[in-house]
Amino acid sequence: MKTDVLSASESTRFDDEVDVLVVGLGAAGAAAALTAIEEGASVLVAERAGGGGGTSAMSGGVIYLGGGTGLQKACGFPDSVEAMFRYLMASVGHGMDEDKIRLYCEGSVAHYDWLVAQGVPFKASFYDGYSGEPPTDDGLVWSGSEQVHPFCDIAEPAPRGHAVAFPGLAGHKLMSVLCDVLAQTPAELSFNTVCNALYRQADGAIVGARLRSFGQERHVGARGGVVITTGGFILNDEMLDAYHPEAKSCSLRIAADGDDGSGIRLGMRVGAGTRHLDKISVSLPVTQPWHLKSGLLVNPQGQRFINEDVYYGRLGEHALLHQEGQVWLIVDDEIYTKPEYGFELCAVGETPAELARDLGLPAGALEATIEIFNRHAEQGEDPLFHKRKPYLNPLTKPPFGAIDCTVKNSRYAVFTLGGLATNVEGQVLDPEDRIIPGLYGAGRATSGVSVGGYSSGLSLGTAASLVAGQHGPHPRVPDRTDDHPSD
Amino acid sequence: MKTDVLSASESTRFDDEVDVLVVGLGAAGAAAALTAIEEGASVLVAERAGGGGGTSAMSGGVIYLGGGTGLQKACGFPDSVEAMFRYLMASVGHGMDEDKIRLYCEGSVAHYDWLVAQGVPFKASFYDGYSGEPPTDDGLVWSGSEQVHPFCDIAEPAPRGHAVAFPGLAGHKLMSVLCDVLAQTPAELSFNTVCNALYRQADGAIVGARLRSFGQERHVGARGGVVITTGGFILNDEMLDAYHPEAKSCSLRIAADGDDGSGIRLGMRVGAGTRHLDKISVSLPVTQPWHLKSGLLVNPQGQRFINEDVYYGRLGEHALLHQEGQVWLIVDDEIYTKPEYGFELCAVGETPAELARDLGLPAGALEATIEIFNRHAEQGEDPLFHKRKPYLNPLTKPPFGAIDCTVKNSRYAVFTLGGLATNVEGQVLDPEDRIIPGLYGAGRATSGVSVGGYSSGLSLGTAASLVAGQHGPHPRVPDRTDDHPSD
Repeated sequence: MKTDVLSASESTRFDDEVDVLVVGLGAAGAAAALTAIEEGASVLVAERAGGGGGTSAMSGGVIYLGGGTGLQKACGFPDSVEAMFRYLMASVGHGMDEDKIRLYCEGSVAHYDWLVAQGVPFKASFYDGYSGEPPTDDGLVWSGSEQVHPFCDIAEPAPRGHAVAFPGLAGHKLMSVLCDVLAQTPAELSFNTVCNALYRQADGAIVGARLRSFGQERHVGARGGVVITTGGFILNDEMLDAYHPEAKSCSLRIAADGDDGSGIRLGMRVGAGTRHLDKISVSLPVTQPWHLKSGLLVNPQGQRFINEDVYYGRLGEHALLHQEGQVWLIVDDEIYTKPEYGFELCAVGETPAELARDLGLPAGALEATIEIFNRHAEQGEDPLFHKRKPYLNPLTKPPFGAIDCTVKNSRYAVFTLGGLATNVEGQVLDPEDRIIPGLYGAGRATSGVSVGGYSSGLSLGTAASLVAGQHGPHPRVPDRTDDHPSD
Repeated sequence: MKTDVLSASESTRFDDEVDVLVVGLGAAGAAAALTAIEEGASVLVAERAGGGGGTSAMSGGVIYLGGGTGLQKACGFPDSVEAMFRYLMASVGHGMDEDKIRLYCEGSVAHYDWLVAQGVPFKASFYDGYSGEPPTDDGLVWSGSEQVHPFCDIAEPAPRGHAVAFPGLAGHKLMSVLCDVLAQTPAELSFNTVCNALYRQADGAIVGARLRSFGQERHVGARGGVVITTGGFILNDEMLDAYHPEAKSCSLRIAADGDDGSGIRLGMRVGAGTRHLDKISVSLPVTQPWHLKSGLLVNPQGQRFINEDVYYGRLGEHALLHQEGQVWLIVDDEIYTKPEYGFELCAVGETPAELARDLGLPAGALEATIEIFNRHAEQGEDPLFHKRKPYLNPLTKPPFGAIDCTVKNSRYAVFTLGGLATNVEGQVLDPEDRIIPGLYGAGRATSGVSVGGYSSGLSLGTAASLVAGQHGPHPRVPDRTDDHPSD
């Protein structure tokens, strides 16, 4: 979908006028619409799909929350705003937005309470030994690298993955609750509707948009502002070529059909700045079940490059971006378990040397890697990468095997993290950090809390965070008494 | 410097009108201005410094050219357009622009001839054993990784660094020649002059700019177009925060004062697309003299991560971006030579184990790395990283030492590679690849041939390449006979 910029002036006549136009109905769009309704605004939501949900509905329904939420308390896990803040600051990658992270953490307990108040179900039970969305309807999970080096020494670990109580596609459950709530408000929901142009005044302010539905165009004025919540751009090959070509090599792009970056382009065309369009989340979920974290992930030089017990979002980023997706998980007969997600053994050997030959690795390299790991593991240590004790099992029991984790042959799941530049109020900024009046953004169409080193739940979390009343788009809702004294 | 967008209409009256306004006078600005003059345009060049030169004048004056230039022939090095193309396609990083690279290579011989015709001096002599600009006035040098794995197997190697004949700051010589030629044309050169706004019509076309000089503003119409040649943004901390925070850790930012990205921001504010704002060139010149390529560059795990004989532009990129700038060059008494650029020994030991302890590396790791390297080097091989034979000397002669190559303590030289999106005609594109009428760009303000894996001379080369008549900004020069029949 291509976008346009249209000129607006005093004399522009729109087909309709609303206070707030929300473009996109995933978690961010639902939250923006509900907030605006709560503040008394008239709201139109334009969603290009036939119903609400977006990529949020395709997710595992895990939301990254903490600081002592009701669910954390019910499950017996103490947490603090400061620990959550320190973990995120250390883990979410170079170029993180400290102000956004601070507010996200400070508002997290209220954010959880708001979700519960909307009717989003969470079960007060903890599921251990699984990363990301649990296979059950349990409520609390580890969804990041909180327990592992170096983060465990930086911030007191706590599980912060808040999983919506629904086995399987819990993201769908989350979105059906939020969309049901929204359907009971006066908000107009317009499905099968794309926004393909913004109206801009000579002073730069955004005052409306052009919508298109079943071949019909509708020109809508938005007195309070337009909120872009259209998601990322992982399905747009041209944008990936321009900003992050490596993402195209991943086998699984996590996105609903609409994630072609149209909202980001709408913003850029009216002079918006961007942040981190080159940042992606890459998951390599080869260490499920966790038992497989005892394996050694090695590159074509037979060398390890990371503590294998990190969250799979961090594993994938290092494997793809630092090792070009050329990695294998080395196991022995003791720790081998069939991995989930179709990962397969691609080489075996009775000795490390035989395995290395079968894999085509240089003589001596893998053998040295295993020998050094084993020697230290016997002392309960991993001085190279500081993997934790439960996974420090010397690999000694033949046969030895290599699980294929190359980007060509295995599952790398990817989505984009960068987008429009926004401040903590959700206002879109130009390349010099000035506010573009009337333009707001939230969710994956913007650059949010995570710019790398992914922990699950941060996308849903930042998408919905604005409803906690802490930050996010609060388009100016015109006061009708002032604007129209004769009304 | 902040930028603005101004509205232009039929009734806008400019203080002056020219055919072509060039913003910035480095190599790209000089080339753009000379080309426009040649085509009969009236030209105004606005340069914020007190004289011409820009970052180009601070460079080593090496230009990446090939395909069989006069200089290559005179020095006895055969080369072909196809070999140059294959090398660049393989080496310049993910997301390269194939069309630009193709035209750059096809136009390279003519490009060299044009430089010679302007009076840029090149001495027909080859200088070996040094990367980048030679310490002499010799003309031809290796300025990339053409001779090393994997590139030597992809394309027939040839030296392509064309060094301007001037010992020392040869970039200054290049620019003084080009500026002298320009001074003899009718072009108006306005120094101490910034461009802080573009004039845009309602239809999106750029028709002029606001210039500021000593507190005075001047509104200039540009009938044929505005050409942005303002350089990169390595001196703008806010832009680095937004696009590439890691760059800030480097000790040496290579840039003239004006490299604050003002031209990129001027473009973004009128809706231009960008390419690869996250890409940087990082040099780690620790392997000068080349003899030091026999050392082993290792990370905190005591592991090698690259063939140490690659060009230092590639070395620095891998060290900073994949190893977080935590690397050391391991040497023995046999190969040690005092490195240039202030690199220093930071640890020594009579054995590899002692050296590892002194460096604080995990027990056994560095020892294994050296042992594996030595074992293969004795056979003349490096199966891990394929370093070439002249540098495959087993490290056996004590004492052993580590040269500090950490980003904190040593020289990492950095500049930005991304910028405005342009087509091969130099026309600036919006985020959906549509031409923005009247806006052109060249040089480091745009994304050019290199988006990583740097070879020296590509910045000067792409900056000046437009003059080869192959590509680059050719603003439409209005035909006065048509426009003003009464003239």
